[in-house]
Amino acid sequence: MRNLNEETITQAVLARNNDMKDARLKEVMTSLIQHLHAFARETRLTEEEWAAGIQFLTEVGQACTPTRQEFILLSDTLGLSTLVTAQNHRKPQGCTEATVFGPFYVDDAPDYALGADVGNGMAGEPCFVSGQVRGIGGEIVPGAKLEVWQADSEGFYDVQRDGGPAQGRGTLLADREGRFNFQSIVAESYPIPHDGPVGRMLDAMGRHPWRPAHLHFMVSAPGYETLVTHVFREGCEYLDSDAVFGVRSSLIADWVEHAPGRTPNGGESATPFYTLDFDFILNPVAKEKVA
Amino acid sequence: MRNLNEETITQAVLARNNDMKDARLKEVMTSLIQHLHAFARETRLTEEEWAAGIQFLTEVGQACTPTRQEFILLSDTLGLSTLVTAQNHRKPQGCTEATVFGPFYVDDAPDYALGADVGNGMAGEPCFVSGQVRGIGGEIVPGAKLEVWQADSEGFYDVQRDGGPAQGRGTLLADREGRFNFQSIVAESYPIPHDGPVGRMLDAMGRHPWRPAHLHFMVSAPGYETLVTHVFREGCEYLDSDAVFGVRSSLIADWVEHAPGRTPNGGESATPFYTLDFDFILNPVAKEKVA
Repeated sequence: MRNLNEETITQAVLARNNDMKDARLKEVMTSLIQHLHAFARETRLTEEEWAAGIQFLTEVGQACTPTRQEFILLSDTLGLSTLVTAQNHRKPQGCTEATVFGPFYVDDAPDYALGADVGNGMAGEPCFVSGQVRGIGGEIVPGAKLEVWQADSEGFYDVQRDGGPAQGRGTLLADREGRFNFQSIVAESYPIPHDGPVGRMLDAMGRHPWRPAHLHFMVSAPGYETLVTHVFREGCEYLDSDAVFGVRSSLIADWVEHAPGRTPNGGESATPFYTLDFDFILNPVAKEKVA
Repeated sequence: MRNLNEETITQAVLARNNDMKDARLKEVMTSLIQHLHAFARETRLTEEEWAAGIQFLTEVGQACTPTRQEFILLSDTLGLSTLVTAQNHRKPQGCTEATVFGPFYVDDAPDYALGADVGNGMAGEPCFVSGQVRGIGGEIVPGAKLEVWQADSEGFYDVQRDGGPAQGRGTLLADREGRFNFQSIVAESYPIPHDGPVGRMLDAMGRHPWRPAHLHFMVSAPGYETLVTHVFREGCEYLDSDAVFGVRSSLIADWVEHAPGRTPNGGESATPFYTLDFDFILNPVAKEKVA
């Protein structure tokens, strides 16, 4: 332990893990230390680059606020979030695929009745969303909880605007047939927040910060795995270059444009409006996992 | 790019690197992404563990202040700092070895004349330090700049105490013979700051936060590689378990205790005092690197 060098340091650090009581923590830290060291060796990382990395990570941490999670952005833009999501949601063919959670979910979104306008005054063209929640066997999932959130037409989530009300965000309960419907606005492409260190990283890497238009859903019901996903908008130019690698073909849907006139909720729209119909197919919790 | 899954995501992220103009950045980011993904795959990282990691890194970033660098502490405690230091300072046998920089250096330490007391009132037992700076060929290095810094007898650096003067920290110039001497205090073992996220990590890992007693030096002179190192105190109980993996046998020296009486600077000490004599052997900059 007194003569560490670049060859012996990794084993020395791992040897220090012997006193770890938590076997899983030991497994995770062992892998982390090995890969961290392998990265530094493989790249022959210089001290200046190490210092730049320290500075970058510090700025990422300091850019985090209660409404902005820059480390999630970093994980998203490096594809780590998609990898972790995918390997934890291996589902039978036919289930709705999961995708990244993103940094803009908040857990105290307002409750809305079916049919309500979760946009709540958010800027954008009206969109009427409907669908049904079913299980993989085709069975109806009555009363599923749907949490939805989305950006406005300028690409900002409500939490990115100081002090306003909850907009484009809400919790609804599907009916006894598993059906749901609500009004919101049409999702548009938007750049992830790129005025911070992750934005500078993307710029240095020659990557754009744009995400294709999407609407976030978290769908949960007793006996089923909770589904965190998006519905993407067909035709959007960033579907093949999502900054956070979230797109799945099966999650791309037609957002149908309609001329001014009668809307699905029986009202009249003086402007064009959109409809989106999308069903969610949930995966039952494995029998041995049910409490 | 629309059908990413846990097998295809890594190649998809790497493919996005194609537009990177900076070849070195591309090399570093490619290795980083590969190891980050391999870590998540190898450990079958769960979403809860991913979220805990995001939270941990956020807390590390937010624990950083102008006088506390928690990400350097993290790098130090995971052995990354020692690895990067070692692979960037491959020196001929006989040169003084480098070790970790640590988080407590500041670049505006006060200048002192040779013989001065850089302790400047810092709590601790007096210690008189002397030595000579030479090159690997035995040649004298006249006028080398020595920056020194250390913790007080309670284990705190001056920057960890609010608003006080610079203590235990200073810049000196060796004389024409490369000789230097100054007064300070005896270094004692101390724990790295462990009231933050890195301290909690060490605790969860069953590791102690202690460093063996040491005095930091940065030694620089035209024509030579700058040396960043410590001198450790023989007999210290943490020499074999330094929390930041910084110990080298060649950097351990005798800090000789003396009874009260005449001190090396010609004064009288009413209390016991210490002397430390340590020479620094610098590595010449490779010829092709000299401007």
